Amino acid sequence: MSGLRFDVVTGFQTGHNMAADHKKPQILATEVVAQSQLFKIESLDLRFSNGVERTYERMKPSGRHAVLVVPVTADGDILLIREYAAGTERYELGFPKGLIDAGESAHEAANRELKEEIGFGAHQLQPLKEVVLAPSYFSSRMTLFLAQDLYPEQLEGDEPEPLEIVRWPLSQAEELLTHLDFAEARSITALFLALKHLAK
Amino acid sequence: MSGLRFDVVTGFQTGHNMAADHKKPQILATEVVAQSQLFKIESLDLRFSNGVERTYERMKPSGRHAVLVVPVTADGDILLIREYAAGTERYELGFPKGLIDAGESAHEAANRELKEEIGFGAHQLQPLKEVVLAPSYFSSRMTLFLAQDLYPEQLEGDEPEPLEIVRWPLSQAEELLTHLDFAEARSITALFLALKHLAK
Repeated sequence: MSGLRFDVVTGFQTGHNMAADHKKPQILATEVVAQSQLFKIESLDLRFSNGVERTYERMKPSGRHAVLVVPVTADGDILLIREYAAGTERYELGFPKGLIDAGESAHEAANRELKEEIGFGAHQLQPLKEVVLAPSYFSSRMTLFLAQDLYPEQLEGDEPEPLEIVRWPLSQAEELLTHLDFAEARSITALFLALKHLAK
Repeated sequence: MSGLRFDVVTGFQTGHNMAADHKKPQILATEVVAQSQLFKIESLDLRFSNGVERTYERMKPSGRHAVLVVPVTADGDILLIREYAAGTERYELGFPKGLIDAGESAHEAANRELKEEIGFGAHQLQPLKEVVLAPSYFSSRMTLFLAQDLYPEQLEGDEPEPLEIVRWPLSQAEELLTHLDFAEARSITALFLALKHLAK
């Protein structure tokens, strides 16, 4: 390490207060610079605490957060869905997920998405962690859940074609990682956290 | 499971050919509907194999992929950086990362980002997995690496303020998960995969 440019902090020593010294950049101005039906792009004039000014772009925060759920059956299977993704133009394997509706709690949204996407509700929903996605550009947060004690209940979703459900033995869960179409970082994170929780 | 709407497949039985039956939707038309300095939003008219037509929006694929690197020192420490994220308006803890430049391989980009962001190169770079980020909206892929056998070398980055480097004992790696600012799904996925690889 050069020691010239960096303030090296040992996380272990300073623990949870590590971030306390940071003075956030000041937001001098924001402006919507492009807009489509789904997306709103905002420019952000920032002044960092060292005086440097920069203009950044980001998705304008919508305030709507999301949930993602790892459902585990009584038989010890994980339930996944395979769905077409327009971004990558391929079918991606992952866990049920979706935005939290107005007036819904994260728990309620998790249970609704389960019912819509895999035809089950869950008597037991364990929050695992709140994660972010490319935080430089997006404000949205997603709460990851483990769902157990499932019961059949189907709610109507809005998918253009039926979702394919994939049942996978929990005992072979880590082999999912070798699948090229199980590649979404949020689903992989949720799988690891669910396995960790179940191993307790 | 209702059995009415869904084609349930047992992943374990069908293994790697699971996705073979999917007929992708046809892309009828694409159009750039909004554009800023950094982002280009595209609408996509799709016809699914069951005849249903829908218009989706996504970030227009740039073709530029990214890398993210978990650096582990000879002393058994993980090196992280803490950087301001305009999306979440807070300092986020994560691993060095960045886009692959034109003409660069993923390995070269990983080593360059290490040098720019933490002042080390790596003699040993192990690819862990290629992940995607919100594949419904983004095409971009990111290769996750484990970096070992580090050597000091600093390249100039383009950050508005010096990056803070956080050194964390590998033996306490899972405790990072309790940190609210270690919340980026790609960094968490990379940490789990690195730990799994190192445990071999």
